[in-house]
Amino acid sequence: MKAIIISIGDELLLGRTVDTNSAWLSQQLAGLGATILAHVTVGDDQAETRDAIDQAARRADWVLVSGGLGPTPDDLTREALAEALGAPLELREEFVEQIAGFFRRFGKEMPERNKVQAMFPIGSTAIENTCGTAPGVQARLHDAEVFVMPGVPREMKIMFERDAVPQLSARSGGKVILTETLWTFGQGESTVAARIADLMERGRNPAVGTTAYDAKIGVRIFSGGNTRAEAERLLEATADEIRARLGALVYGRGEETLADAVGVLLRERGQTVATAESCTGGLIAKTLTDVSGSSAYFLSGVVTYSNAAKTALLGVPADLIAEHGAVSSEVAEAMVIGCRGRAGADWALATTGIAGPTGGTAEKPVGLVYVGLDGPDGCQVREYRLGEHLGRDDVRSRSRWAALSLLRLCLLGEKIDSTWSRVPRPCGGTG
Amino acid sequence: MKAIIISIGDELLLGRTVDTNSAWLSQQLAGLGATILAHVTVGDDQAETRDAIDQAARRADWVLVSGGLGPTPDDLTREALAEALGAPLELREEFVEQIAGFFRRFGKEMPERNKVQAMFPIGSTAIENTCGTAPGVQARLHDAEVFVMPGVPREMKIMFERDAVPQLSARSGGKVILTETLWTFGQGESTVAARIADLMERGRNPAVGTTAYDAKIGVRIFSGGNTRAEAERLLEATADEIRARLGALVYGRGEETLADAVGVLLRERGQTVATAESCTGGLIAKTLTDVSGSSAYFLSGVVTYSNAAKTALLGVPADLIAEHGAVSSEVAEAMVIGCRGRAGADWALATTGIAGPTGGTAEKPVGLVYVGLDGPDGCQVREYRLGEHLGRDDVRSRSRWAALSLLRLCLLGEKIDSTWSRVPRPCGGTG
Repeated sequence: MKAIIISIGDELLLGRTVDTNSAWLSQQLAGLGATILAHVTVGDDQAETRDAIDQAARRADWVLVSGGLGPTPDDLTREALAEALGAPLELREEFVEQIAGFFRRFGKEMPERNKVQAMFPIGSTAIENTCGTAPGVQARLHDAEVFVMPGVPREMKIMFERDAVPQLSARSGGKVILTETLWTFGQGESTVAARIADLMERGRNPAVGTTAYDAKIGVRIFSGGNTRAEAERLLEATADEIRARLGALVYGRGEETLADAVGVLLRERGQTVATAESCTGGLIAKTLTDVSGSSAYFLSGVVTYSNAAKTALLGVPADLIAEHGAVSSEVAEAMVIGCRGRAGADWALATTGIAGPTGGTAEKPVGLVYVGLDGPDGCQVREYRLGEHLGRDDVRSRSRWAALSLLRLCLLGEKIDSTWSRVPRPCGGTG
Repeated sequence: MKAIIISIGDELLLGRTVDTNSAWLSQQLAGLGATILAHVTVGDDQAETRDAIDQAARRADWVLVSGGLGPTPDDLTREALAEALGAPLELREEFVEQIAGFFRRFGKEMPERNKVQAMFPIGSTAIENTCGTAPGVQARLHDAEVFVMPGVPREMKIMFERDAVPQLSARSGGKVILTETLWTFGQGESTVAARIADLMERGRNPAVGTTAYDAKIGVRIFSGGNTRAEAERLLEATADEIRARLGALVYGRGEETLADAVGVLLRERGQTVATAESCTGGLIAKTLTDVSGSSAYFLSGVVTYSNAAKTALLGVPADLIAEHGAVSSEVAEAMVIGCRGRAGADWALATTGIAGPTGGTAEKPVGLVYVGLDGPDGCQVREYRLGEHLGRDDVRSRSRWAALSLLRLCLLGEKIDSTWSRVPRPCGGTG
């Protein structure tokens, strides 16, 4: 079963609105076993919409259209569909009544112009909208089902789930595609891909691909089966194989984050963590506490942005900062040791670095970050040179992942180095 | 000048990633006076990509392609372009050297497979990538310029602005559309819209619309003119009118955030701020330090997630927590007063609340958040009931904006209440 998704609206074409409908519909369709051939976005233009529907219906079994069903003159999807079908529009009185009823629910009278929303191409099926004024339309064109929904995400979703899903399920012939992503951190995409190159060959089922996202590399698995059980079995076998190849590089799956992974390990061990952040400015604490229930292991964090705060809140000697600079391995070490001791935590993480865009020098460029980790087995500081080309947000975000990954690997007793990590520097520590 | 935007990647077609590149490119192209005919998304499939490029080049003057230039076997845009052009790929040694240099900067050797990124269709123009390994390609097909960029947004944007914009500017006929957004916080979309209803009428130039994003309401302006100067003049006149209508509700424009606005005000006054966060877990400190140069006014933050940390780091009496609960107006007050005093800051913000999804009760539901503000003129605590329907991320994010907005309005001496703010509770304070 092949599908094409069409989104209609000038606001999309002009970039005022990001098209989230297509992504959502894609997820649903993939889960139902459909192969999505393309997303197409056109503006509020009758001829463009007509052509997009016509061309899609020649290639796909299902064409999912959203947008352009409003009551205003720039809503032209009804007319475009009628033109593509070669069937004129007719007014259906029962839908005028339904739309008027929608307004009455809010104590209002239906504006005359909303009547146009009760126009449908002759021979098409009207679809009730229970939470908005725009009914949908379904029609058959070139052996394809064309399913037209409002552009408002909530209305679109309700209509799709209620009216399209049962039809799609019935016609998918049971073919099911499941997708899952394993997440890795610490190596580049090509290094990850090289270890699973054979699994990534074209034409295999499950299909495997890699994708980079915010310095994390995801390994995606698309598993097809005649039944859900078969697709699941194949998916899990491939996931196991990938985990065996990549080892501790894999920190999670699906929606799992590095903070989730760290949280699970800390809970298992009954241990706690505290943070002391300079360049990341609270991002590590925020990320750890993104996890509901993190109060079980996250004790406290300090954001010591100023030198005075590093001294006052962490006990970093002022002359140590004067001698080595706030962005130095020595200060990171003093920060993390001070943090662990004062918080009374099993583990502590500290960051100090140059997030940019200003403040870099030849010796200490933007992207230079020291991550300190202190724990039961001692203290270490790692130096990362994330690259001067990165923006402030990226430097901070990657520093965060590097810190959480370092903690995770130490909790696991693993010795994997990050791509960026250099000059591992064992410290005296407080262990 | 007509343009079509093509995005390539299975992650887009499967709905794993929302396509933000197309929206961004559309904004840029519209600003340059181009008419965008369509967005098209295809998967990592050579034939589909080839056909999409070929068809787009028959209709448009410019085809902007992003994605599929990575080093792995599922990156097939190079091959697809070569096929569309009928020109085989050739290896360009100078680009092998450039890619290898990129790896060397990080002390690594180029994996063999990255060499494929130095392959270009014969006769095409290679485009340097200064912040990633994938060079771009430009080629002429059916009288259209096909401009192929990496899918990584940052790399795509830099390449587009550096290499495509000068060419596009030179060829655009002069019709210019400029867009700008004014950002508000504290009132709902319909309240904001009601105050500028006449400006939002259809058919006006500049056109004005509202959009809600993460509890902030943006007022977008689209201004068209025969020259850039004309479009700018119209835009500024409308922006001035909107500011006059909305007053202090407007905190920024374009990319400006509430943290930027707070930073500007603190700098002007030579004042400082510190934070004490429970439910927001570091998000306020992170947001304040998103701003480069924030060390001029942000002194320090503490994330006191546990009760013990509230006592140790802020001096909140343990029996106060025992009596009122950690999520209470009394504890917020003690937190913010302790924070301001210990940090020696002019202003302090504190949050304590129930971010969910668990931990809510009938009396203290998920979404209940207390925001404390202490400053030169005294202390206040506000209670927000953000709604039990919100997810954890939304509760935390809105609490952050509410806190920063409260600080901003106090810095301005404004008395505007937020929609959610209830039970304003003046405290003894330390002012």
